[in-house]
Amino acid sequence: MQTIYQKMETTELDAAIEALKAEVAEVKAKGLALDMARGKPSPSQVDISRPMLDILNADADLHDGNVDCSNYGCFEGIPSARKLAGEFLGCPAEQTLVLGSSSLLIEHDIAGMFWRCGSCGSEPWEAYEAAHDGKKVKFLCPVPGYDRHFGITADLGIENVPVAMTDNGPDMDEIERLVAADDSIKGIWCVPKYSNPTGITFSEDTVRRLVEMPTAAPDFRIFWDNAYCVHDLYDETDELANIFDLARAAGTEDRVVAFASTSKITFPGAGIGFIGASPAVIAEFSKRLKAGLISADKLNQLRHVRFLPTIEAVKEHMKKHAEFLRPRFEAVERKLTEGLGDTDCATWTHPRGGYFVSFDGPEGSAQKVAALCADLGVKLTPAGATWPYGKDPRDTNIRIAPSYPTVEDLEAALDVLVLAVKLVAAELARAERA
Amino acid sequence: MQTIYQKMETTELDAAIEALKAEVAEVKAKGLALDMARGKPSPSQVDISRPMLDILNADADLHDGNVDCSNYGCFEGIPSARKLAGEFLGCPAEQTLVLGSSSLLIEHDIAGMFWRCGSCGSEPWEAYEAAHDGKKVKFLCPVPGYDRHFGITADLGIENVPVAMTDNGPDMDEIERLVAADDSIKGIWCVPKYSNPTGITFSEDTVRRLVEMPTAAPDFRIFWDNAYCVHDLYDETDELANIFDLARAAGTEDRVVAFASTSKITFPGAGIGFIGASPAVIAEFSKRLKAGLISADKLNQLRHVRFLPTIEAVKEHMKKHAEFLRPRFEAVERKLTEGLGDTDCATWTHPRGGYFVSFDGPEGSAQKVAALCADLGVKLTPAGATWPYGKDPRDTNIRIAPSYPTVEDLEAALDVLVLAVKLVAAELARAERA
Repeated sequence: MQTIYQKMETTELDAAIEALKAEVAEVKAKGLALDMARGKPSPSQVDISRPMLDILNADADLHDGNVDCSNYGCFEGIPSARKLAGEFLGCPAEQTLVLGSSSLLIEHDIAGMFWRCGSCGSEPWEAYEAAHDGKKVKFLCPVPGYDRHFGITADLGIENVPVAMTDNGPDMDEIERLVAADDSIKGIWCVPKYSNPTGITFSEDTVRRLVEMPTAAPDFRIFWDNAYCVHDLYDETDELANIFDLARAAGTEDRVVAFASTSKITFPGAGIGFIGASPAVIAEFSKRLKAGLISADKLNQLRHVRFLPTIEAVKEHMKKHAEFLRPRFEAVERKLTEGLGDTDCATWTHPRGGYFVSFDGPEGSAQKVAALCADLGVKLTPAGATWPYGKDPRDTNIRIAPSYPTVEDLEAALDVLVLAVKLVAAELARAERA
Repeated sequence: MQTIYQKMETTELDAAIEALKAEVAEVKAKGLALDMARGKPSPSQVDISRPMLDILNADADLHDGNVDCSNYGCFEGIPSARKLAGEFLGCPAEQTLVLGSSSLLIEHDIAGMFWRCGSCGSEPWEAYEAAHDGKKVKFLCPVPGYDRHFGITADLGIENVPVAMTDNGPDMDEIERLVAADDSIKGIWCVPKYSNPTGITFSEDTVRRLVEMPTAAPDFRIFWDNAYCVHDLYDETDELANIFDLARAAGTEDRVVAFASTSKITFPGAGIGFIGASPAVIAEFSKRLKAGLISADKLNQLRHVRFLPTIEAVKEHMKKHAEFLRPRFEAVERKLTEGLGDTDCATWTHPRGGYFVSFDGPEGSAQKVAALCADLGVKLTPAGATWPYGKDPRDTNIRIAPSYPTVEDLEAALDVLVLAVKLVAAELARAERA
């Protein structure tokens, strides 16, 4: 489809560009400093969890059942926290570990285990290349996706292969075709609910196909980062199928490695992180981790389970977060619709949860839009970041992170984004005629 | 030197064995359950740090300077905690990182970096074997030493090479000879102050020689685990030379990687962990860690620095710990002297700090003593654990961990140990004559 600028007569287009440039000059004069770059809750939103800091005091009982949380031991995590982890991840508590404050670090560490040691009788991934004439190990990366995920596999020397996202999750036809034929494809990154950045939730059919599909690699792993499993904006929530149940039925439970944390539930960076996987994978990972870890911070685990003892308590708490986030997501929808709704310059997603909106402008626009926004004092996630190696081949995608600014600042930032998209789209249309 | 049992006439020895066996039967009937296995503070000792749990409450300012500790960011650790880390480690704050709750995990992770990625322009350690006709990478392990250290290098496939401890630290003549000749030796594990388990502190000459010695490997690393740097039992403390100052003077600062944590200062497993190294090594390690970590738990860092703002405050706090530990170490000294002092069956160390006493019985005794103690209800660190691969070639060494039991229980456990050593020594003497 053509943008309104492509449809204009050249004189009309030139006039539009001049008018947009004048607007840009006005905005620049304001000296804005606004940030839509990262999925950070706003300071007021973080304050929701402050009561948790009162829970463990000098007189508190520091036991969880018969576990003394104030001393060494209990590598797997305290029983109440493992129970909660199981409810988050949809697997038995015995198939979970509760570790430090970062689920990203757990993902990094288990990827490192598969790389260096292999698992479930399969060779280490690092041995694959030499044994297969220099063919590199590959990982499927639904795009647009989460830059830090792609960074973990890239850091290991794994080749990140983009696959398209659809409204129902990643393109399963393409994935099934790829993994059936190529045993160098060892896994896929997934954010299955309110995906980063599209906000879509995988359909039950997608989840089922992921665990049922034949894979040439016997050690194919689904990295199931359920980071936004309870991060609903509305009472009517997206529903995600339980991947462990489906995998168990399909006989592929070793394929699934699931993650979550309380980072965007309590305190970002100071929460507790969860991993759930098959008994075999958890046993192997525990053995490796124990080489470097006696036990994680059990006092922080205790603080968390006393503040949020059940998944129901977590969901009640998340309603308070939604009150902060909902007006921000609605501001994004409103501002983009008002500013770009009839320009045919852009599409964007309409998430019902999570932390991001995925925005696509005209081909070849995203780098220019991000640069122009930066020049106007609005920081965006770097254009291209949602693709492996930062290379968005059509240069269309921008991740909008609306959580951190105030609604007022967010609206101002979105006005700038709208203006930047219009000017860049107009100039692209003009360049086609030069 | 011969034990008293070796010096006895056979009839006298047989009578002694019968008497000791009768004592053993009496002890066994008591059904004891005592634990001298691990370096855990006792519950009452841990309670010293409970006031720290009151410091961050719902109304607290959660900033450290301009760093918001309640949200993502500040990967390196909060400024106040890095300052404290520098004071612990003896290097500038800018050369430290403050990470999660476990210094062992930091050691594991940086060993993993040297293994997989190399550093300072040197090849990854994992590439060494293939490039050198199958010659394995080696690490020097002062013995007796810390089993979990040896486990980290063993887990990577590195060959652990024992070197003897002396009263001044590891045998530097032997180390200088080994590292000058063999570029497969990539490092050494050190617990330089109140060493685990001997309790000795490296002399200044030892520290100086470690940083000044020529090494065939350009990427030789000293893993300097200063776990007990403030864990003094007496006002008159052992003094450890500043390895960073000496290394800087010797031009070998990249060689030193230092660690510490507050695990045995505040809450075991729930403290904060420190690493200090040269600017180059810290930069490389940060780059690798950032692939999996946005930021560590800064709220716990803040809690710690508000409780213990300076190294002087830490030292005051450690005096309270010493009040718990001193009677336990003195009970070990007293019970061993009373029970074994004139038997020529054993030697042991006399630490002025740390968590352990190293005990040596007759050759071939340690496994038997540990088994007999276990049978009598006294749990010891597994015999051999203080040597790489759990293999103590002379089978003499036992690590005594006196911190966890009450003084009364500890004394009962030591009586059992003394009895077990006597019986095993007597039976060994008898077996020589069979």
